[in-house]
Amino acid sequence: MSRSGKNKIVFTEGGICAPKGFRAGGVHCGFRKNTKKKDLGIIVSDVRCSAAAVYTQNKVKGAPILVNREHLKNGKAQAVICNSGNANTCAPGGVEIARATCRLAADALGMEAEDVIVCSTGVIGEPISIETFQNGIPRLVKKLSYEGSDEMAKAIMTTDTLKKETAVTFTLGGKKCSIGGIAKGSGMINPNMATMLSFLTTDIAISSDMLRVALERDIIETYNQISIDGDTSTNDTVSILANGLAGNPEIDAPGDDFNLFKEALRTVTVQLCRGIVKDGEGATKMIECVVKNAPTGSIARIIASSVIQSDLVKTAVFGEDANWGRVLCAVGYADADFECGHIDIFLSSSAGKIQVCRASEAIAFDEDHAKAILKQDELWITVDLHDGEKSGASYGCDLTYDYVRINGRYRT
Amino acid sequence: MSRSGKNKIVFTEGGICAPKGFRAGGVHCGFRKNTKKKDLGIIVSDVRCSAAAVYTQNKVKGAPILVNREHLKNGKAQAVICNSGNANTCAPGGVEIARATCRLAADALGMEAEDVIVCSTGVIGEPISIETFQNGIPRLVKKLSYEGSDEMAKAIMTTDTLKKETAVTFTLGGKKCSIGGIAKGSGMINPNMATMLSFLTTDIAISSDMLRVALERDIIETYNQISIDGDTSTNDTVSILANGLAGNPEIDAPGDDFNLFKEALRTVTVQLCRGIVKDGEGATKMIECVVKNAPTGSIARIIASSVIQSDLVKTAVFGEDANWGRVLCAVGYADADFECGHIDIFLSSSAGKIQVCRASEAIAFDEDHAKAILKQDELWITVDLHDGEKSGASYGCDLTYDYVRINGRYRT
Repeated sequence: MSRSGKNKIVFTEGGICAPKGFRAGGVHCGFRKNTKKKDLGIIVSDVRCSAAAVYTQNKVKGAPILVNREHLKNGKAQAVICNSGNANTCAPGGVEIARATCRLAADALGMEAEDVIVCSTGVIGEPISIETFQNGIPRLVKKLSYEGSDEMAKAIMTTDTLKKETAVTFTLGGKKCSIGGIAKGSGMINPNMATMLSFLTTDIAISSDMLRVALERDIIETYNQISIDGDTSTNDTVSILANGLAGNPEIDAPGDDFNLFKEALRTVTVQLCRGIVKDGEGATKMIECVVKNAPTGSIARIIASSVIQSDLVKTAVFGEDANWGRVLCAVGYADADFECGHIDIFLSSSAGKIQVCRASEAIAFDEDHAKAILKQDELWITVDLHDGEKSGASYGCDLTYDYVRINGRYRT
Repeated sequence: MSRSGKNKIVFTEGGICAPKGFRAGGVHCGFRKNTKKKDLGIIVSDVRCSAAAVYTQNKVKGAPILVNREHLKNGKAQAVICNSGNANTCAPGGVEIARATCRLAADALGMEAEDVIVCSTGVIGEPISIETFQNGIPRLVKKLSYEGSDEMAKAIMTTDTLKKETAVTFTLGGKKCSIGGIAKGSGMINPNMATMLSFLTTDIAISSDMLRVALERDIIETYNQISIDGDTSTNDTVSILANGLAGNPEIDAPGDDFNLFKEALRTVTVQLCRGIVKDGEGATKMIECVVKNAPTGSIARIIASSVIQSDLVKTAVFGEDANWGRVLCAVGYADADFECGHIDIFLSSSAGKIQVCRASEAIAFDEDHAKAILKQDELWITVDLHDGEKSGASYGCDLTYDYVRINGRYRT
């Protein structure tokens, strides 16, 4: 967003259908009892795409991930299908069902099963039936629309209360290009693959290899830096399809075009990350922790994650208590090599900025001002290490009564 | 407790004053506003002791820890003084105040300042004043008693609701020996040094080196395996004083006597660990996770810790929901090298035992029986990896509305 002139990146409407040649849709087909809640969604490109995906680092993986790894070996795909209400994880015969789902979708769409990415989200360990997909896919394909982003974004929601959807436009080689994205988040979200699911689309022309490099680099500083509750789901997947319909000269090497694409991608993913943490289970406040002047970017990110994951920091923010000692404590147990004798800590929000710790020691500050800052919905915690020149951020939310309520009664 | 005959280890009364020659006491001296809450406690041995301590792995450390490290270099000590209500961490001039506290106590007791261990627990970053110690120490020394364990155990409590105190007796070389212990716990408790504070006493004769080895080995499988909320405090300390008054032949090498001592010590520390997690902030249930048939003991402990720290497992237990998928998920993201395709999961309590997952897949089970098991105050989660022969355990509690309430309003 810092660019000007022809390199400007601008937010736009349309979500995953903002890029040319992408249709989407969503239906209720029976994974959920509530017939008003869509539970099956699809994204389809008019043409075959360069494609890439990154997955959870949990050793226990949803069956769909095993199938996607096979399907994306060639770096190509044309559609994404996703159900909510059942994670197809530790379910008997899950891999066969994931494969069959791709075949059903491919047949209905007139493409190869290997060009379909499949995802599932919901409860782990419940049996899942192919009949439910058989019931939904024909209706789903009929509903496909170039304005269908909203339906797909809603179909993948579980305990999410808000739809997460965004898009940007920018210019490459004189051609208007777009990137769109949707995400689902809420609980069970943690550094190593933050959002459970995020689907990205773009109409730029880019090689599969460069697309994969861009995505893998991007998530290190975005989705992997999100935490709702420290748990890493078995099903987390971020995928991107690039169909080339913008007509720009294909990006097949690093350079200015690639850098602009990465910046536009970052704009989309940071926006989705903020949406995910704002909608964390039971969350009332978004927290962004920025660590400055660290020895390396990786150390900055490790420290920022440690702060954002601390239940004590999260409950203090919920209670609007400027308990900076808990922030310093979480910095101190971060598993990284740095000096912690010169740390400054600041709190900021739309109500202003205040320093609460200087050189790792208590300082006097205006408690009323701190209270006013903490009252806002979006809070920034800035930690200045004075031990280097690199920065890193993390994205999280407060820990509330509602988190406990939602997760104490999820399955039953 | 499995031994018989002369090697029997038996629980007894008296806490830290159960071993011969230990006096203790507690007073209110002004660290807390509530004058009915004791906030300064002391343990004194009649003679100089072999001594050892282990500390938090947080990089930010309370000032007392820096002083204790100096004082325990020679492996000797005779007294422990501890206040609650202020952690003396990131407080201006904290190290000087910790040193001065030892001097005040030593002068009042007629010993060297270097023979005093000092600890503080409470809020981080608040200024702490030596006058408060000056006010309390003379009264504290007057109250010293061979029945004073209860007062000391209460003086170190912060948000704890229950006193944690235990003792055992056993026989070494024909002499009756005892080990006593107290602990404080509640929030901010995590694997790398679990309880914020635990003080152990024994009347056995043992060299400083062997005492240190025994303590360092013990905490790996006890205090380091506790988690209340995943946060590691800046002040965690476990210390032990051994005054030799039991008259057993001094233990100065490995052997049967050392093994019996280690087993008795384990009996005391496991009892205190269970007490700490039962009294975790807002906890309604104790959870013990046992990982069986793992490749190594360390891997078993890493996995057990991952399960016990999962907010999703903790809220499910609070909601009495047999959501074993969350257990399997937490096993899967444990940072260790093991196979996770053959995992069995069991839930058990005083209401019975039930299998909820076989070979990492869903199995049918009696939900009513599971519900009845989860209704109890003490729950065991057993994870059988079928990938080796080693075991490990972890100790934790559920995550409740009260945890959020307590920690949202701690400082203000």
